[in-house]
This record gives sequence, structure tokens and C-alpha cells, in this order.
Amino acid sequence: MIVGGVAGGASCAARLRRLDEHARIVLLERGPYVSFANCGLPYYVGNVIQDEAKLLVSTPQLFRDRFNIDVRILNEALSIDRDAAEVLVKDLETGREYRERFDALVLSPGAAPVCPPLPGIGLPGIFTLRTVPDSREIRQWMDAREVRRAVVVGGGFIGLEMAENLFHRGVDVTIVEMSDQLMPPLDAEMAEFVRRRVATHASHLQLGDAVAGFEQAASGGLVVRTRRGAEFEADIVILSIGVRPETGLARSAGLEIGKRGGIRVDEQMRTSDPRIWAVGDAVEVWNTVAGQWEMLPLAGPANRQGRIAADVICGRQARFRGVQGTAVCGFFGLTVALTGATEKALRRAGVSDFEAVYVHPGHHVSYYPGARPIHMKLIYRKSDGRILGAQAVGEQGVERRIDLISMAIQMGAAVYDLEEAELCYAPQYGAAKDAVNMAGMLAANVLRGDVALAPWDDVHAEDVFCLDVREKAEFRGGSVVGAVNIPLGQLRGRLQELPCDREIWVKCHVGQRAYYACRLLSQHGFRAKLLPGGYQTYRAFHPEERPQTSASRAD
Amino acid sequence: MIVGGVAGGASCAARLRRLDEHARIVLLERGPYVSFANCGLPYYVGNVIQDEAKLLVSTPQLFRDRFNIDVRILNEALSIDRDAAEVLVKDLETGREYRERFDALVLSPGAAPVCPPLPGIGLPGIFTLRTVPDSREIRQWMDAREVRRAVVVGGGFIGLEMAENLFHRGVDVTIVEMSDQLMPPLDAEMAEFVRRRVATHASHLQLGDAVAGFEQAASGGLVVRTRRGAEFEADIVILSIGVRPETGLARSAGLEIGKRGGIRVDEQMRTSDPRIWAVGDAVEVWNTVAGQWEMLPLAGPANRQGRIAADVICGRQARFRGVQGTAVCGFFGLTVALTGATEKALRRAGVSDFEAVYVHPGHHVSYYPGARPIHMKLIYRKSDGRILGAQAVGEQGVERRIDLISMAIQMGAAVYDLEEAELCYAPQYGAAKDAVNMAGMLAANVLRGDVALAPWDDVHAEDVFCLDVREKAEFRGGSVVGAVNIPLGQLRGRLQELPCDREIWVKCHVGQRAYYACRLLSQHGFRAKLLPGGYQTYRAFHPEERPQTSASRAD
Repeated sequence: MIVGGVAGGASCAARLRRLDEHARIVLLERGPYVSFANCGLPYYVGNVIQDEAKLLVSTPQLFRDRFNIDVRILNEALSIDRDAAEVLVKDLETGREYRERFDALVLSPGAAPVCPPLPGIGLPGIFTLRTVPDSREIRQWMDAREVRRAVVVGGGFIGLEMAENLFHRGVDVTIVEMSDQLMPPLDAEMAEFVRRRVATHASHLQLGDAVAGFEQAASGGLVVRTRRGAEFEADIVILSIGVRPETGLARSAGLEIGKRGGIRVDEQMRTSDPRIWAVGDAVEVWNTVAGQWEMLPLAGPANRQGRIAADVICGRQARFRGVQGTAVCGFFGLTVALTGATEKALRRAGVSDFEAVYVHPGHHVSYYPGARPIHMKLIYRKSDGRILGAQAVGEQGVERRIDLISMAIQMGAAVYDLEEAELCYAPQYGAAKDAVNMAGMLAANVLRGDVALAPWDDVHAEDVFCLDVREKAEFRGGSVVGAVNIPLGQLRGRLQELPCDREIWVKCHVGQRAYYACRLLSQHGFRAKLLPGGYQTYRAFHPEERPQTSASRAD
Repeated sequence: MIVGGVAGGASCAARLRRLDEHARIVLLERGPYVSFANCGLPYYVGNVIQDEAKLLVSTPQLFRDRFNIDVRILNEALSIDRDAAEVLVKDLETGREYRERFDALVLSPGAAPVCPPLPGIGLPGIFTLRTVPDSREIRQWMDAREVRRAVVVGGGFIGLEMAENLFHRGVDVTIVEMSDQLMPPLDAEMAEFVRRRVATHASHLQLGDAVAGFEQAASGGLVVRTRRGAEFEADIVILSIGVRPETGLARSAGLEIGKRGGIRVDEQMRTSDPRIWAVGDAVEVWNTVAGQWEMLPLAGPANRQGRIAADVICGRQARFRGVQGTAVCGFFGLTVALTGATEKALRRAGVSDFEAVYVHPGHHVSYYPGARPIHMKLIYRKSDGRILGAQAVGEQGVERRIDLISMAIQMGAAVYDLEEAELCYAPQYGAAKDAVNMAGMLAANVLRGDVALAPWDDVHAEDVFCLDVREKAEFRGGSVVGAVNIPLGQLRGRLQELPCDREIWVKCHVGQRAYYACRLLSQHGFRAKLLPGGYQTYRAFHPEERPQTSASRAD
């Protein structure tokens, strides 16, 4: 018996049938649909996906015909009697309650949008998005009135997808996000590349602030009030401040719940009861990179877990290898993707044996028209070079690079392996030294001792000499406050202008020329360090700072 | 001293300077440019890249200013005096010859287009493409006259890129290719996906035929005659039938040449003379997957080799890990990419411990608009599941999947690792089960014994029962000759229609329903085998066959 008929539950049911033609399989789903495309819901709201039927990846009929599975939609599991190995089920259409026996039970209840008890939370026009009916209600709301202004509460994956889709329908969007950055899973400086893009599309970004309550406006719309005292009028409000695992059934059955609030399972997706499995957004997963339990409500892992639970139930030796947190999100022409651990996750986990480099290469060679930058951060273990994580933001080719680094992490690769990776190259597809190669090379250069990194957050330290080796015109366009400009091509002839008693922190635009300069200076006896990723990284760390645009001090 | 200033040589020179600020570095280049974008030349011909200056990635001036490298363009190395450690050089502008001493010598002479001594080969309007001046001459030829018809000789990477670029300029293109397929590195059935696309853009495809000679046409154009007696008129002819390593200098110096005709080097890129290194298109490389020496004239490996030669010269412990043959090519809206070994390469190398699966999933979920199929072949070792190679053809996301499989091969991954890969998924970027996951799952299912593969090339064998489990309407659109149609949803109820005494080979459209059917049938005691990749693969193996479009025999 399987409780929950979307990603994990549906995968589990189908796999069970493939493994055992003769088992009796009952799939309970309390909603009206099984196996629907929940990841597609924001795009249905945005009318990118126009036909609701497209969201129904499978149907109860198909499950019956193809897989001989007894699918019961609108049937809710109320409680589990573990001793009797029975589930108490309620038929939501008839109200009838009945008991159903199981030999093996799989829980796939998912996670529900967080909906805090704020004043006015129940007002019409405030929505969350989890199911097909939810998205239909939002569409109906928008079709029934002129919706000009929206407030999206929460600037994470779903919030930004919703912002994109509302924008796509011509709505002015304000985003309110409690943390100081968009896309909270990203490191702050990488989220700055996101903020910059979102700022050109959203009518307002309210970061570091939370909603205090909602009111009906005199005009008929809604007023969203924030803790810091801001007020935004809106014709619709979307709450996307995260999800909470649906653990009610598991809790009341006395199954073990983890510290992060999800159902605790072992490698075989088995709960603390050996006859009960759990999969999908409601379970805690082991992050193999960060080395900790976490919630990761994503479809890919849910599907894999469903398969694995089925394998184990059928007596196979399957195990879930854990997660590494690969994810992607697209909005306003930008793609954001990450895999493995972020710097903030590592710090939170108490890990200090790591280091990060930044590169900003084009998604293909610059001489072929249309190259767009990829901003990439690569995090690796200092002690052995093992890759710990990567984050990338750009318009093109972002998911490609993160997918391949994801595979590298899965296989335990080190930065040296990225340096040597043999990747698809033709002018319109990349570069002979791909973005991933470049990140790997830079990290490998650091680990081999060919160059040392200077920390961007200390770039204004008094006792360092900050050297900018870009051309004069570039320097005039803005640089680190206090930096001295000597273009790389002049550096060998102007070494006497540099101090021997201080560290020299070198930057350029993206880091390549600065690396050359560091190699040059080190071999001439200077204590040179590289500011990785150059001015592009600087601006991500210091977005608020008015760049120095005065003439070169070295003119 | 470095001979040859393009990819490998230029990379080597720059890396040498980074490692040793005080070395004297002389870079000889017999042409007028260093470090030019040879991969971009077809696109300059096609005017996609409009400005010739864009092709010059670096200049002698930049090499001097930034790297303090003594670049000598239009200087040709005539011979090497190994005993004296000297190179005899000719200044092509002044005609002066001089000798230059070296402590270490790096050869990066590249490879030249093959230009067979056919009758009329010297006629004006017949071009090869290797250098910036070559591409300039082609452009000038096209600008000076009305070029309506072109013949491209050779249907490999460069030939198809040239065909694309000529087509882009409005020229009717005929392609003549000696082998029976386009893109000879691909397996024939995968090349069929290429042929299909090229056939809709090229005015004529002449496969399995070679050029016999050229003549001046009465109209002023050229006539291209083939061995099989065809004649094509053309206003321009491009020869792209492969390249030959430039080994003259190395041969005359008595350096070891490998069996494939390239300069033989060790893992440190050292030739048979310990003071002479060689890199780039002129050297033979060890293919780590196929386990054999080969020529692989690609920019990525050339760059890596240049770096490694520099490392070794400077006393570092670097080694070239060999190649795995990752490559990509784009034309007519199609991307073709491959990595690792093909089936034909494995057979040539005498390897029989392998098997292949085919999948044809969308590049993203079908419910999000715009999904385009990726046709993928995954080859793996039967004995342990290790991935040996992959080929993919499609419009979107092809290079992404091949890059990640390339990384998997590099790390020694097995199909089980692809099955478990955690990849970027959002509706517009992929699927919860990505194309790569699906290929891995199918292969893993085969290796675990859950399903056996039937061979497509024997699909018409008399003693098998060919079962098509698609819906009736799909079956009516065409199927394998002699196949019987029972839609998957009806299969459980119609088992009595199937034979117990013969193997049942099952197909559907792309393979998924057929896999379900195989699982079902096996558990009911039938001897079922899967025809992998379904009708899509069938049509790639049997393009010439008129599909059976009669009504279902099982009606």
C-alpha cells in the first residue's frame, strides 16, 4: 500500500509492478490527481503551459490499465495501526471510513507550503501553490479581475518562478524576502548576480524584511504590511516561503522524526518500523557532501527513492546514496544552478577545510557571436582538492556546467579532474578551455602553490597594496577603492613602483590577467596574492559600494 | 623554443612564462598569425563571424608585452640539428636563414588538410580550409562572383560545418562522402539521424562515393566527377576529407613516428628525443577508452598538451592522461556529440565485452512547451557496467548530456552511476529522470537481468515473434514488418495470443512501454526481449525500409 500518488509514490507503485507482476498494489491519493506535474504549476499559472491536461503526467486509468494498480484518488489515509498492519482510510467523496491491510506500506505524503498565522492571512487573493486545484484557483482569480500588481512573499526557487510567471502575464511584481538575499540556498555574493537581474524585472525588491500582515485595501485590493513598516498594494499575493514536510500520519503512528522535522529513514528508505517505508519531500535525506541530514524537496531524489523503496520491498539490495543538492531555477532569462555544498552550508556544518575560486568566462568563445558570461563559484577541500560544491549564474549553458560538476562530485573527483576534463568544444558550444576547466585550473594552481588567494571580504585592509592590472580605460570605469593601476603589459617595466614590505593583492576584470601578474610578481620576489574573479567578483561582494572612478593614480 | 604558434604551441609558451619568469622563450610561426581561432574559420566563411580581427585570439605584440615572449611570425623551422641542439630557421620575408639554439624544443606543427592528387585539383575555386588566409581567399572568391552551388567533399565535422555555413550564405550545397554515412566517427545508425536532417538542407547527398576529378565547366564553373559516375556542377568546391599531421620536421630529425602517422610522445609529451616535446594535432594520443593510439585533431587536448609540455620542461611531474574523444558539431539546427568509444571503434580494437542501449527522451519534460528529442546511444562493458561511450543527436541539450557522460567516463563510472546521477531539473531544463538517468537505468536493468536486449539488426529473424505494444493508431503509422500489435494496456488480457515456444521481441515507440511489457511477459513465463529505443531506433537501423502501414493484424 502506498500513501501519496505524486512523484515518489507513483514511481514506487510503477516500479513495484515491474518487479512483481502478482502483488496487489493499492495507491491512495487524497487529492483528485495522481502523478501530476507539480514542478509545472508555476508555468500553468503563467500560461506558458496553457492546457491543464498537460499537467497530468499519468491518470488513475493508465495506472490501472498498464500497471494493474488499484488507484484510489480522493481517499485519505487517516491513521496507521502498526500492530494490525492496517491503515484507516477515508473516502473523501462518500465520507466512508474503512481499514486496509498491508504487508508493506510506503508513505509519500509530500510537503505543504508554509502558511504562517499572520493577520489577514485568510483574505481572498492570498494563495499558496501546491496542487493542480491551487493553480487553477490562481488562474481563475486572475481571469476574473484585472490583476496589475502582485506581491510574492519569499524569494527562493518557487517565489522567483512565480515572479517570472506573473511578470510574463504582464503583472508588476514586488518580492518580499526575509533574508538579505534572493535564493537563500546560494552564497550571498552569488545571489547578488540574481538580485541584479531580478531588480530589472520586478517593480520592487524588499530584502531583509518579512510580512507582518495583510489588509483589505479601500480600492478592493490587498495591502501587504511588512515588519519594517513598508506597505505594498497588490491584487494578488503568492506565499512561497518554503514547505513543511507532511509528517502528521507518521508522527501519530509513532515513527521516528528527524531533527530537521522530516521522517527519518535508513539507506533503504525504511522508517523506524521495518514494514513501513517513506519517500519524497517528507523524508530527511543525508547530504553526502555536507555530511548532514537535510530536507530537499526535489522531484529527482523523490523518484529515485520511490524506485529504491520498491526494490527493497521486493527483496533487492538497493540503497539510496543520499543527495548532493543539485538544483536549477530559471527566471527573467537567467539560469541559476548549484550542486554540492555552499560556503554557508559548510560553515554551518562546522567545516573549515575548504576554499573557493570564482571565474566568469563566456558560455562559449568570445569570437563567436552571442557569448554570455557564466558566473561560477567552485568550492573544494583545501587538504586534497576534492570538489565540494559549485554555484553558477548566467544566461546560457549554466545547467550544463553544474550537471557535469554534479557528476564529478558524485564520483569523488578533485579539482585536478576538472582541469583535465575533456569536454564538448566547437565555437558555438564552449571553449577549448571550458568554464569548468578554468575553474579547475585556477583551483589546482592554488593547491599546487602557484598562486595564493586573497580574501575579497578583506579587500579594503589597510596593510595591503591593491593592484589593478587592467588597461587604463577599464580601470577608469571603476575599481576597488584605493587600488593602483598598472596594466599587465607594463608591469615588468614598473616593478619599482611596487612595495616589497606589504602583500600585493592583484585584480583584473575576471582574474586571468591578475593570475599572470601574480606569477610574474612572485618570481620577482614580491608577496603577491590573487583576488579571484576580479572586478566581477568584487562587485558581487560589494554591490553597495560606489566604485572608484577617478583617474588612475599611476597615470 | 616552440615551433608553431596556434593552440598547443601558444598555450605552451604562455604557460612556460607563468612558470619561469626568467626563461628565454622563442616562438616560431611560419604563418602570419599566432594563436588564431582555427575552429572559427568555417563561421568566418559563413559570415557568422563577420570581422576577421575577431579570429585573432592573441597577437605577437600581446605575447611580447604580457609574456615577454620572442614571437617570430613568418619564420619557418627548416630542420633540427639534434646533436647541436639547434634549429635551422628561415625568415620567410627576407629569405634569411639562421640557426637558433634550444635547451628544450616543443613541436606544435599541426595538421594539414588532405589534398589528394586528383585530376584538376589545382583549378581555381577549389579550396581547403586551415588558416586565416585560406578563409579570406574563400570569402574573396565568393564576394567576387555569384556562388550558387557548392560541392563539399567530405561529410565529417568540418565538411558539415562548411555545408552549414555555405547554406547560411544562400548557397545550394552538395556533399560527397566516401563512406556510406555522414559523420564517419559515429556509428552508422546514429549517423542516420544526422543524414535525415542534412537531407532537408543540402540539395544533394552523395554517400558511398568519392571524387574522381575536377574539370572546368563550359559555364565557367567547375564540374566535380565521382567514381560512381555522378557529375555535379559547382561555383566553389571545399575539400574537407580529413587532415594529415605535419610530421616533416620530426621525421627528418629522426624522431619516432607512430603507426597512425603522428609523432609518438610519452605521457609527458616528450618525443623519442628527451630534449624535444611535441603537442597538438601532429601527435598520436592514447585513447584511454578504446586502449589504442589515434589521431585526434582537437583544440582542447592540444591546449592541455601544451600546458603539460611546459610543466615538464620546468621540472614538474605533469602527465597527459590521454584522450577519450569528446567532440561536438552543430549544423542545420542539430547538435551531434560523442565521447568515449563507438561500437565501430570497439569492434576495430577487437573488443567484444560491450553492449549498447538507445533512448530517445525529450531534452526536457514533454508538458513544458518546446521539448525536442535527444537520440542517445550508450555503450558499456557487459562484464561490469563500466561506461565506454555515448553518442547523441538532437536540437537541444545534447552537449550537456555528453559532457556529463564524458566526466563519468573520465572518473571510471558505471551505468549504475548514471542511473543515480542527481542532475539539474526544472521543467524547462530537463526531467526528474533525465535522458542520462534513463540510459543508465535501462543499461542497469539489462545488467541486473531484469530485461534482455534483442538485436536490431536481426529484427526480421524468422524464428522470433515481434510484438509491438504501442496504441493501435501509432502502429498503423508504421512498424517493423511482420510485427503483431497488442497495446500495453490490453496485454494482460491477451496473453493467450502469444507464443510460448519462441522468443518475443518487444518494441514500442522509444522503448519504455516495451520494457514494461517485457517485465510483464517474463513474469508470466514468456521469453521476452526488448528492442531498445523502439521504433525510433528501428528506423535508424532500417532507413530504407518502407514501414508496414497495414492495419493491425491483431485487430
